[in-house]
Amino acid sequence: VKEAAAIGEIAREVIRRVKPSVKDADHLRGIAKDIIARLDAGAAAMGLDVYAIHVGSTARDTWLKGRKDIDIFLMFPPDTPREKLELSGLALARSLSGDCEERYAEHPYIKATYEGYSIDLVPCFRVPDPAHIQSAVDRSPFHNTYVLAHINGLTDEARLLKQFMHGVGVYGSELKTTGFSGYLCELLIIRYGSFLETVRAGANLYQSAVIDIEGRMDKTVKHPEPLIVVDPVDPRRNVAAALSEQKLYELVDACRRFLPAPSIEFFFPPDNEPLDEAELLAEMSRRSTLLVAVAFRSPDVVEDTLFPQLRKAAESVAGLVDRHEFKVFERDVWAEAGWSALVLELLVWKLPDVERHLGPPLEQREHAAKFLEKYPGTYVYGFRYAVNLPRQHTDAVELIDAKLKDCGLGKNVATAIKQEYVLLTGGSLLSLGPGMGKFLRKFLR
Amino acid sequence: VKEAAAIGEIAREVIRRVKPSVKDADHLRGIAKDIIARLDAGAAAMGLDVYAIHVGSTARDTWLKGRKDIDIFLMFPPDTPREKLELSGLALARSLSGDCEERYAEHPYIKATYEGYSIDLVPCFRVPDPAHIQSAVDRSPFHNTYVLAHINGLTDEARLLKQFMHGVGVYGSELKTTGFSGYLCELLIIRYGSFLETVRAGANLYQSAVIDIEGRMDKTVKHPEPLIVVDPVDPRRNVAAALSEQKLYELVDACRRFLPAPSIEFFFPPDNEPLDEAELLAEMSRRSTLLVAVAFRSPDVVEDTLFPQLRKAAESVAGLVDRHEFKVFERDVWAEAGWSALVLELLVWKLPDVERHLGPPLEQREHAAKFLEKYPGTYVYGFRYAVNLPRQHTDAVELIDAKLKDCGLGKNVATAIKQEYVLLTGGSLLSLGPGMGKFLRKFLR
Repeated sequence: VKEAAAIGEIAREVIRRVKPSVKDADHLRGIAKDIIARLDAGAAAMGLDVYAIHVGSTARDTWLKGRKDIDIFLMFPPDTPREKLELSGLALARSLSGDCEERYAEHPYIKATYEGYSIDLVPCFRVPDPAHIQSAVDRSPFHNTYVLAHINGLTDEARLLKQFMHGVGVYGSELKTTGFSGYLCELLIIRYGSFLETVRAGANLYQSAVIDIEGRMDKTVKHPEPLIVVDPVDPRRNVAAALSEQKLYELVDACRRFLPAPSIEFFFPPDNEPLDEAELLAEMSRRSTLLVAVAFRSPDVVEDTLFPQLRKAAESVAGLVDRHEFKVFERDVWAEAGWSALVLELLVWKLPDVERHLGPPLEQREHAAKFLEKYPGTYVYGFRYAVNLPRQHTDAVELIDAKLKDCGLGKNVATAIKQEYVLLTGGSLLSLGPGMGKFLRKFLR
Repeated sequence: VKEAAAIGEIAREVIRRVKPSVKDADHLRGIAKDIIARLDAGAAAMGLDVYAIHVGSTARDTWLKGRKDIDIFLMFPPDTPREKLELSGLALARSLSGDCEERYAEHPYIKATYEGYSIDLVPCFRVPDPAHIQSAVDRSPFHNTYVLAHINGLTDEARLLKQFMHGVGVYGSELKTTGFSGYLCELLIIRYGSFLETVRAGANLYQSAVIDIEGRMDKTVKHPEPLIVVDPVDPRRNVAAALSEQKLYELVDACRRFLPAPSIEFFFPPDNEPLDEAELLAEMSRRSTLLVAVAFRSPDVVEDTLFPQLRKAAESVAGLVDRHEFKVFERDVWAEAGWSALVLELLVWKLPDVERHLGPPLEQREHAAKFLEKYPGTYVYGFRYAVNLPRQHTDAVELIDAKLKDCGLGKNVATAIKQEYVLLTGGSLLSLGPGMGKFLRKFLR
């Protein structure tokens, strides 16, 4: 009870900070209506059987103050040929504003700026029900309808949960974050009835837990993901498909820490000051590890494309280093202001001059004979041949420099690295700017 | 043909060196007869229904020059009570010579010196057939009979094979060597008909190969050992049970090297000069590894007891070192002149001041809560908690010193180490004497 009271007080303060003012909300809704009217008129003028709808958090009254995003879907008849949907849809969308940019998710859409708002204009098929969707975006209008029908006045609870997730670093289902989407937050509020009950449930979440609000999960579909939240509008779909194990348990951890000691800092963590060079050098000297970064100009792709490639590249470089008997302590990826970096902290980065080169099993007689001929110092090592040779790479940084381009890096990252990269160690990582300093304060935990 | 001719010439020279002279052989056989006569008379005088027989390589004419070992078995009726066998058997054996010592294998026997020969006097049961043996030693008289009946004039071939095995370091089935016994060499000669054919077969041996001379292997018995040589006198027994995978493949390797380039050096390798301190320091500086030895007074047990314990201890110490994120390159054990040593060569023996301490999975809620309370810096690491702490052991030698007594060392080795041990590194290993210098020349390959 005391806990609930303390949390109630914190919640009021959070809502005060994150709930858009009535004036701002009214303004945003007015803009949305205006946009819809213009697009509907435009569609009529173009002779299209198309209408616009407002979806997303601004349509559901669950958005956080300061967000100026309006999602507008352009609803085409389901029998529209895809090329026509794209051509006419983009043309209609472009008619809204001179400040437009084409983007691409599952299919193309327009990002426009209008009256200071950022508008996503997404053509989709208005299918009769979610079982007949032709593309993932066709599901969004159904999500909108479902949430509006079930959120039942709990919009501020959804805001609390989103801000909590944001504060503890697990908000966002983009591939950069691999956390919880806004829709997922809303579903959790619908399921558990309040922010506090969601946090209580969150403290008990576990790998492979299933949350099935409507109780109609399609059990023929296997979900390998760490958490399964059945989409109420499509029982075959896992709303939490993009959530990583790491972020799932970060939420669990945050819930467990919050409940016994609630504090507004969970929602608004103190800003992470960038590590300056003196601090970094002091920390590196205290730890006596080696910090090394492969830094390069970010390829010109969206974060959802970039981050999986960066992670793949970091794993690949870490694997290279470990395979050569050095030892990686921690790895992570960073991208900001046009630069990307694969960052590694090493426990072992220098090795003696000798290495064991393992040969074939003696049972493989031809291979074994070739090995024996090639290496005069060959000896028997259990069931196989081996030879001690001067170590090819006694320094991990030299190794990375020599083999980086042979690592599995992902297409765009590989191209970027092929053009140019720098290997930075220790204090020189800060040459990437204060963003790297912030990153390192977390990385060197 | 040319190969066979070259090998023939080498073989003649080897035989010249290893075959006892007619005079020496006659003398040995005379001594054996003399011993048997004395023991038979002694048995009669003691009222025992017991007779002595001469077994082993000196009885089979397969022994190597200079060996002065005579194995005499005292054949008791199979219904003799075991205590009587031991008491009367040892008493009878002691009657041979004033220079006697009791030893213990599966049961006690006497090692006596007689006319400059070393005589093993082993009481056993004269069972009607090997299926009725009461103790492993009861099998030896049957082995003797089998070899005498089947070796068929190939005694010099057996000598060649034994000397070859000796020269390449795989002769001897004691637990120190884990190689090929004399009996096993004789069986191989019986199976393949000559030294050369045995070497040709040896070049093709492989893990789990079965050699079954009499074709009557008992297939209900599973043999996990690397080579299975069915005992012709007991189809359930593997004569190669003590052979290690390492020694099996060392033989294979030696055979493969010998056949295309036969040389007397396989039989008589040049003596291994001990590494002196200057050489050792030069080699360590070239390799830039760390050599470390745990040295202690050898416990007063036979080598068959000591060596398995030393190996267990070395594995255990290597495991300790690896588990703490250092890196072992090579390990071996050494014992000579009252001293034992576990010798390790390390690739990594210093580590940074930070280490990751892994905690429980978050799913184990109580354990996780305790961990979180105990370690303020706890973070989520996949599905479990972890915390970065100052590393407890940043130096592998200090680690060994701190934890050696907690390692699984084997009973007698543990007691010896508990009394006293020294940790030697680099050049100081040579303080253990020239035997260590010889050992290191091989170890640092």
